[in-house]
Amino acid sequence: METVVSEADPQQSFRGLAAATGTPLEPAYPVSTLADVDAACAAAEAAFDAYRATDADARAGFLDAIADEILALGDALLDRASQESGLPLARLTGERGRTVGQLKLFAQVVRDGCWRGVRIDPAQPDRQPLPRPDLRLRMIPVGPVAVFGASNFPLAFSTAGGDTASALAAGCPVVVKGHPAHPGTDAMVADAIRAAAKRTGMPDGVFGHVRGPANELGAALVADPRIAAVGFTGSRAGGLALVRIAQGRDVPIPVYAEMSSINPVVLMPHALETRGAALGTAFVGSLTMGAGQFCTNPGLLLAVEGPGLDAFVAAAKDALAAHDPQPMLTGGIRQAFAHGTAALAANPNVEEVAAGRTGDGVARETARFFSTTAYAFLADAAMGHEVFGASSLLVRCADMDALAKVLATVEGQLTATLHLDAEDRAAAQPLIPILERKAGRILANGWPTGVEVAHAMVHGGPFPATSDGRTTSVGTLAIDRYLRPVCYQDLPAELLPAELHDGAEGPKLVDGKAA
Amino acid sequence: METVVSEADPQQSFRGLAAATGTPLEPAYPVSTLADVDAACAAAEAAFDAYRATDADARAGFLDAIADEILALGDALLDRASQESGLPLARLTGERGRTVGQLKLFAQVVRDGCWRGVRIDPAQPDRQPLPRPDLRLRMIPVGPVAVFGASNFPLAFSTAGGDTASALAAGCPVVVKGHPAHPGTDAMVADAIRAAAKRTGMPDGVFGHVRGPANELGAALVADPRIAAVGFTGSRAGGLALVRIAQGRDVPIPVYAEMSSINPVVLMPHALETRGAALGTAFVGSLTMGAGQFCTNPGLLLAVEGPGLDAFVAAAKDALAAHDPQPMLTGGIRQAFAHGTAALAANPNVEEVAAGRTGDGVARETARFFSTTAYAFLADAAMGHEVFGASSLLVRCADMDALAKVLATVEGQLTATLHLDAEDRAAAQPLIPILERKAGRILANGWPTGVEVAHAMVHGGPFPATSDGRTTSVGTLAIDRYLRPVCYQDLPAELLPAELHDGAEGPKLVDGKAA
Repeated sequence: METVVSEADPQQSFRGLAAATGTPLEPAYPVSTLADVDAACAAAEAAFDAYRATDADARAGFLDAIADEILALGDALLDRASQESGLPLARLTGERGRTVGQLKLFAQVVRDGCWRGVRIDPAQPDRQPLPRPDLRLRMIPVGPVAVFGASNFPLAFSTAGGDTASALAAGCPVVVKGHPAHPGTDAMVADAIRAAAKRTGMPDGVFGHVRGPANELGAALVADPRIAAVGFTGSRAGGLALVRIAQGRDVPIPVYAEMSSINPVVLMPHALETRGAALGTAFVGSLTMGAGQFCTNPGLLLAVEGPGLDAFVAAAKDALAAHDPQPMLTGGIRQAFAHGTAALAANPNVEEVAAGRTGDGVARETARFFSTTAYAFLADAAMGHEVFGASSLLVRCADMDALAKVLATVEGQLTATLHLDAEDRAAAQPLIPILERKAGRILANGWPTGVEVAHAMVHGGPFPATSDGRTTSVGTLAIDRYLRPVCYQDLPAELLPAELHDGAEGPKLVDGKAA
Repeated sequence: METVVSEADPQQSFRGLAAATGTPLEPAYPVSTLADVDAACAAAEAAFDAYRATDADARAGFLDAIADEILALGDALLDRASQESGLPLARLTGERGRTVGQLKLFAQVVRDGCWRGVRIDPAQPDRQPLPRPDLRLRMIPVGPVAVFGASNFPLAFSTAGGDTASALAAGCPVVVKGHPAHPGTDAMVADAIRAAAKRTGMPDGVFGHVRGPANELGAALVADPRIAAVGFTGSRAGGLALVRIAQGRDVPIPVYAEMSSINPVVLMPHALETRGAALGTAFVGSLTMGAGQFCTNPGLLLAVEGPGLDAFVAAAKDALAAHDPQPMLTGGIRQAFAHGTAALAANPNVEEVAAGRTGDGVARETARFFSTTAYAFLADAAMGHEVFGASSLLVRCADMDALAKVLATVEGQLTATLHLDAEDRAAAQPLIPILERKAGRILANGWPTGVEVAHAMVHGGPFPATSDGRTTSVGTLAIDRYLRPVCYQDLPAELLPAELHDGAEGPKLVDGKAA
């Protein structure tokens, strides 16, 4: 999605740009070379066996230490992140809390041990016609993981974000490709991780780091034979490019790319009738949060025509009219947003309902709200493509059947939302099976922006929301992405890993039953 | 791997061939058309929501009924399978027990409910700075699954084999592409599944079936947009072809292809010294079982030079000399075996150690046993490629360091085996981390052929043993292949699935703790 995010100079260094003004920021950071990628991968591979052999307390202590080191960076980190991203300090303070919280949550996950997936089927030497061997299963980490920083979460989805936390928790060394739009933030957090690794005695190479504005760097990282899996949050084009590289390797590897979602929101008739205006105002709050630069931004609304919908639209229009433009993360994102919204505005079957105030800075957005008909939407797949930023399209439907038909045609999504009253539940029931097949998370009477880091969270979903809908990139289930099962048959105890010994503590299934 | 497995006539029907003689068998079976593929996929899609909504008892009852219907086919099924595959009745009787047993095991898995992966994080309305929503997660089935029958397990990995059982257990309708080498066996089992579906009131389309000798049929099945995942056991070329089709779709889907493995067996020095001859005899038993036509056939032996190894080789030679040739599954497999063993025999760095008696039938194998040096093996990647059938290569190593080096260079494997005495354990310890990264199952003092269907089994492994090393195709963990997580946020109870209701029975994590 991004083309110009930083300024490279002939000495092979680059600077971040202030998101609000486009002004280069000091200092310049050296651009990593392909030799740097090679060295980071070699170090990660060399560290793998030692790191995966760390016990739960040591590994959890490392994660906790990263959290502490990030907090110790204090306001300087938030200031730098705000300059580079244009995001306000209040938002970044919250995002830091989330980043630190998820590191500590994964530390707890490591200690709890469910992730080991221990299963034991004891030997049955007297079974007929053949004895049963002793079988013991555990999950092991897959190997060094490449993580790509995301532009829209300079802390929570970047250098020490969710992908890094879950991969380190699983026992995988991580090589981060820092996002070039926030090199200063990236450098500070990378230093924090290195300090934590040193302080807790982790093996050299448990954390590697490369940076630079060129795509070749990330391509080389994914192509490196020592990398065993990839975590990525970003554009569809970027994610698919990494998937292609990963699939073309001699040994293909999984890519967990969180890519593209328009997050349909269904406004049910009774809810619109009783609280259409309030929903319209709340919608604009979600639409414009963070200049709309969330994967879970509500980019598609579905509703049945009627006075309730009119009230919704009127309130949304008022709220948008009062919305001041915000800086966008990068010039590339702003350009893509301008291009996507211009295409919608130029579509003869799309009406522009409302817009925010016009931006004056180089990288400020103007929030946009469009509408179309179900008929037009069904005939034009381009209307269902993500426009990253504060843009949303309302699909006006003649009735619930038409609405269900539109829902059934949208691509895979991270989220799907229902606004409904008790009186709407019967009509909403038949939508649930459709939504389950479309989205990783279904929510009621809320807005999809704001993703809780928890055990039951799913931030994932069918393609193209992600490249692998079998998992999540937020929440504790994310650790499973970086694990694979190994069965040990009749191994002498001396050669068995500790968690598979007779009497070892921790959750397990014995003969398929929790024990 | 196969080219000629059946005889198609101008009326678009085909016959199986007797494996032992190559003679066509009656009756002729109609070749499925692309319209048949389309119809089966449409029916599977139409059945999906109804089938996934079945409760545990109903779905488990269906699986149990399939097992009962297969048993009700009696000796006629075994006779036909033996004619078509050349496998002896005793083996097929065991394989039928395994097939029925795994259907019943998955029925129990469905009833136990662990597969639902229920996680509940209750709302925290008073949390500061923001309330926490109510989050509830369950696994849902991915959608209709395409399953490819395998030639080497006409029952346990074919029409009602492990892939079918695990997909049906997950709640996915299945469309089977029957293996053209055993159309009669396939037809009988398909009828059994249909009878079970009817008897237990499953929706039409829960089981679909297509057959025919052309690869286009399977390609069309994998390309069909209604298919959500693929289970396959077969050759590397066949598996990779399906992976490419699946990756090239508008919506890519996962392919679980179990493809290629040479299953290294390490003979540790003390074990060779004390029982080299006995190991040599036992090795030949595993090598020649089922004419070597197992994915877990011991195709690579590693040992340190010495008198123990000499005793092993001498005993293996004697045992092989007494080995009568067995029919192979198909002419294509026999040709590939002849080609692979001829290439080894012609390699100037490979010595033929021993061979079984020469075959006289059109499709009979001659078991082959070769040896080479660690140096030669490391210099020639082709020596590490699978030769499907009773062929094995011994790599003679100067010392344990050379042996470890060879192990570290082999491709991903389904299994890795250690034969060791207590005195060998210290020397074996450093091999364990290498084996964990290479294989899905590590076994001691046994032979890799014979895969227990159990909770702790892993029949999987890093590429190219499978196309997706994160899972298994045998054992109860196989159900996870066909599931994906969905999170429900603040949904009213009326819209929540039953297993996520307050007070619902079944295993779950509440706030990350087993409850």
